Amino acid sequence: MSERVVEWKALREQCQKVFVSMGIPEKDAFVLADCMVYADLSGVASHGVSRMTIYTQRLETKVVSSKFEIKVEKDFPAVVRYNGCNSSGALVGTYVMQQCIERAKKNCSCFAEVNHSNHFGMASYYADMAVREGMVGIAATNAPPNIAPWGSPQKYFGTNPISIGVPGPNGPIVLDMAPSVVAMGKISLAGREGKSIPEGWALDTDGNPTTSPEEALKGSLVPIGGPKGYGITLFIDVLCGILSGAESGPYLGHMYNDFTNPQNVGHFFHVIDISKFTDPSDFKKKMERMVNDIKTMRKNPGVSEVFLPGEIEHRLREERKAKGVPLSGVVYTELEEVCKKYGVEFKI
Amino acid sequence: MSERVVEWKALREQCQKVFVSMGIPEKDAFVLADCMVYADLSGVASHGVSRMTIYTQRLETKVVSSKFEIKVEKDFPAVVRYNGCNSSGALVGTYVMQQCIERAKKNCSCFAEVNHSNHFGMASYYADMAVREGMVGIAATNAPPNIAPWGSPQKYFGTNPISIGVPGPNGPIVLDMAPSVVAMGKISLAGREGKSIPEGWALDTDGNPTTSPEEALKGSLVPIGGPKGYGITLFIDVLCGILSGAESGPYLGHMYNDFTNPQNVGHFFHVIDISKFTDPSDFKKKMERMVNDIKTMRKNPGVSEVFLPGEIEHRLREERKAKGVPLSGVVYTELEEVCKKYGVEFKI
Repeated sequence: MSERVVEWKALREQCQKVFVSMGIPEKDAFVLADCMVYADLSGVASHGVSRMTIYTQRLETKVVSSKFEIKVEKDFPAVVRYNGCNSSGALVGTYVMQQCIERAKKNCSCFAEVNHSNHFGMASYYADMAVREGMVGIAATNAPPNIAPWGSPQKYFGTNPISIGVPGPNGPIVLDMAPSVVAMGKISLAGREGKSIPEGWALDTDGNPTTSPEEALKGSLVPIGGPKGYGITLFIDVLCGILSGAESGPYLGHMYNDFTNPQNVGHFFHVIDISKFTDPSDFKKKMERMVNDIKTMRKNPGVSEVFLPGEIEHRLREERKAKGVPLSGVVYTELEEVCKKYGVEFKI
Repeated sequence: MSERVVEWKALREQCQKVFVSMGIPEKDAFVLADCMVYADLSGVASHGVSRMTIYTQRLETKVVSSKFEIKVEKDFPAVVRYNGCNSSGALVGTYVMQQCIERAKKNCSCFAEVNHSNHFGMASYYADMAVREGMVGIAATNAPPNIAPWGSPQKYFGTNPISIGVPGPNGPIVLDMAPSVVAMGKISLAGREGKSIPEGWALDTDGNPTTSPEEALKGSLVPIGGPKGYGITLFIDVLCGILSGAESGPYLGHMYNDFTNPQNVGHFFHVIDISKFTDPSDFKKKMERMVNDIKTMRKNPGVSEVFLPGEIEHRLREERKAKGVPLSGVVYTELEEVCKKYGVEFKI
């Protein structure tokens, strides 16, 4: 089946209805759907509605709780630790980020961690929430193993993503990165297309560089900057997992293979209220200067534009909101099947 | 002249005496010396006593203030902004980190930024301070340009380092990294030794990959993970420089070429009190499990040991404290000259 282009709000409503049909309150169902469609709008299909099948499966098998609950475990004015009570990651993340924003308005900043959560989609979804309020937003999560400690072939840490965003003169400036050279999704895709992968992306199970997607999928992803990326992923795991009281590295539950044990994922969030911390006009002026400098720079051979972090994704979101979101034939069909399964009319 | 091995405390005292002879109070002079010797102990000679010449020059020309002053500009229980009053970076960093540690004991965490500071040496010096108190420590600084925005050949951001540390079962676990594939120091060294550099380290002034150290020194350093490392260095600059009210990117004063305008460097620091935030025995147990897992892993071909972040540097510090710190002939001679200049007897 070929690609289909669908209207983004209709897509969101379609997904929301599926969750509502499973007994999830309308406003929670909206957040779950919005978080996925944000990824599709941003061009990150791996975190988009392609997750409908697994998310609904996990809710149905009750390995993820379909009732949103969250408890405060440690409470200081600018620091909070939450227990996510095995609720959906997107609900936990959205709630905690909103709390951080409110607390930052009073205390200039708020740092929060959560244990007993689940896969929360794209980290930039949460950083963006703070940016829309004119604040600095940071969000990170741990995830099951795909990266090996530098020098070993045994994968141990996730491609633990971190996102950080600030308001810019032409829209949000938001970095959202995993500490691996490439995402596992690119390697799976190469495998499905029968292509080899460039050396430098992955190691086989003995720690040798490999160009075979099959060997790479069994092996591990190369971290950016070698020991540096290993250090980044280790510390995101320590902060999100161990410090929050969640699980860590290989002890996290697996999203696709384990429908019995909760994942016990951990996240951290940090919000800084720019207007409380510094002179907002000085901040704005210096950001404008930086953005203007970067956008008017000389380009490398073959480069037509120098981008700010997240600029491509921001532009794509605007474009796809106007022109529609492309869904691959596979994802479109899967979504149709999920709708059928839960008795929701499919009309996108 | 050949390498000399010196006793670390004698080296620190030697440097301290130079600063004292310049009118700097004894305890401030100790911190300045201790911060440099920490780098030599850690095997990072570029940030060690090799900086004595430039640090004393900058103090003497008054482009760095020799009187330590610092002002609170914004004050919330867990968030502070300071003005470093153009004091030495090591004094500013040490003071602010101590304040963060004290405030974290009360408020669980403290996030602080500083403007109008100067080069502060190794970022891990400050992260380590928190780790010695059983806390999480984070320190970062911006620096003058060496990295270009991805897609441009124009260097704009520094090799802005970030360090993060936590206590581990066998000593501190501390990442201290710049967002470039290699440090500029390695390229200068290759140049002095008449060697070429591997492709992937640097770009020339037109943005082409280069293996010539001379072209690389005029050009820019390649960021880790391409656009990811560019994003990291941009955000460290935004947080340390723009958000703090300090300068940013190419607008920072240059340490070696400019003896008129203060650098106006910015830093950020973040401390989290583990015992206030989580169950310390759970934290300890999970850290032990992680470290044990990593240390007993299978190794890649040719690898004899898998290290934790900062483990090599920690081990080297212990070894050099016992056996002495090697100084290159050039650095030893420079130090002798600095001592002569300031009338301090040279006896290491």
